[in-house]
Amino acid sequence: MSDLNTVNRVAIVGGTHGNERIGVQLIKKFELRPDYIQRSSFSTQILLANPHAVAAGVRHIDRDLNRSFERDRLQNQTLESYEDRRAKEISQIINSDSNASVDVILDMHSTTSNAGLTLIIDEENTFTLRLAAYLQQIHSSVKVYSTSHSGREQDALRSLAKFGFCLEVGPIAQNVLNADLFQKTEILIHTILDYLEQHNRKEVILLNRSLTLYRYLEAIDYPRNEHGDIQGMIHPQLQFRDYEALHPGDAMFVTFDGGAIKYSGTAVAYPVFINEAAYSG
Amino acid sequence: MSDLNTVNRVAIVGGTHGNERIGVQLIKKFELRPDYIQRSSFSTQILLANPHAVAAGVRHIDRDLNRSFERDRLQNQTLESYEDRRAKEISQIINSDSNASVDVILDMHSTTSNAGLTLIIDEENTFTLRLAAYLQQIHSSVKVYSTSHSGREQDALRSLAKFGFCLEVGPIAQNVLNADLFQKTEILIHTILDYLEQHNRKEVILLNRSLTLYRYLEAIDYPRNEHGDIQGMIHPQLQFRDYEALHPGDAMFVTFDGGAIKYSGTAVAYPVFINEAAYSG
Repeated sequence: MSDLNTVNRVAIVGGTHGNERIGVQLIKKFELRPDYIQRSSFSTQILLANPHAVAAGVRHIDRDLNRSFERDRLQNQTLESYEDRRAKEISQIINSDSNASVDVILDMHSTTSNAGLTLIIDEENTFTLRLAAYLQQIHSSVKVYSTSHSGREQDALRSLAKFGFCLEVGPIAQNVLNADLFQKTEILIHTILDYLEQHNRKEVILLNRSLTLYRYLEAIDYPRNEHGDIQGMIHPQLQFRDYEALHPGDAMFVTFDGGAIKYSGTAVAYPVFINEAAYSG
Repeated sequence: MSDLNTVNRVAIVGGTHGNERIGVQLIKKFELRPDYIQRSSFSTQILLANPHAVAAGVRHIDRDLNRSFERDRLQNQTLESYEDRRAKEISQIINSDSNASVDVILDMHSTTSNAGLTLIIDEENTFTLRLAAYLQQIHSSVKVYSTSHSGREQDALRSLAKFGFCLEVGPIAQNVLNADLFQKTEILIHTILDYLEQHNRKEVILLNRSLTLYRYLEAIDYPRNEHGDIQGMIHPQLQFRDYEALHPGDAMFVTFDGGAIKYSGTAVAYPVFINEAAYSG
């Protein structure tokens, strides 16, 4: 499916990772003020995805919920972890009625990297790209990051809907709130809901048909020794430089003794999710 | 005790909180390179305080280790939590021989607040103030924060030694490393060890006998409702403004609906540990 005539059901999700509190707090806010997310041409539901992890202030209890939605896992009744059980529940909630399943999922995340305001898309289809272009037209600081070439399976919560989007904002430490990023995330949600309303009414105005898109190229892990222990840190010249050009030979890591490890690629790259806590274990 | 003729034993501690990785990684570094922390006039030992919490990437397993060293707790054999048991082990390690107990503990911490390079002191005695003044003389960006008027019990790990110091560096998210703050923490450790060496040799040179000290005044909690749920966030005008003047009437918090909550004090204050993750639950 590459486009959609009418959006009927939207789900706004927070707390997929329990220690990313902006999404959690926005779900609480929308619960108290459903009028904020109501639009006339479609229904909007909210979902606190991983309540046990939220209560514990951790990313997950047993396994990453946002890697637990492969079709095989959802159908495997022998998987007993908390997140596997929760994934089945969420799948039921989202697709309870195959005639009225959720069209669009907006999953709110945050990151310790300097992602700014990032919209993650998993497919580069017409509907998705038009929404991304509109968001960037309204909020020029929004970065659009496409995982469509990452080879990652459709295992994220947002893959349950026909069209799934992930908002990643940062930098923000785990388990804290940041008023500026909280307010900006809320504004992005409003803009997306307004866009979907205009889409249903065939009233979308795309002033500029261009879109700057960052595509997944490769994942670069920390330097590690033979035991898997990390041997270095993000180089100070790279830390917080998400979406900035990294040239062949630029410093990427620094060892604990101060030696620089350089980028050995042959072409300019634009790193993202630099020093995200969940990836540095 | 307000001064000390000769420093004989020093302990450098990391991982008192398991998700503060700079201290953990520096302990690993010093383990591989003991020559870095060796000085001729005293012995230096290293200690990874909470290895289970480090392995799990959490602040603590059962309770905050750095609030587990009251004398009553240490003597109470019925306390069975992991941190209570570990506190007793550490107390044995630090004070195994009453004739050769540890004189100085340097406990390395990090924080999500913009603490910069902070030295926390718990008592304002001659030995402590002179060390603090020397550190500030060498590294002018070091802030000295005194808890001596906080009313807090001597429950921190560092209270096991005659003279305990805590290094707090930030801002840094939990469970990540930051090369700049890692390197600066290591430099501060080296400067303190050099100072202790000079102290033993009666060769300390204090060029300037003044010291800027921030004293504990009060702890201000987030606004909460009757259920204890927080009702606001640090105001964008205050976030990351540690050690800057907060005037009566300045915005302190912002509610989730955007309303400002102002500082109701009657005098200028200098807030610290603004939005530290461990205090925002």
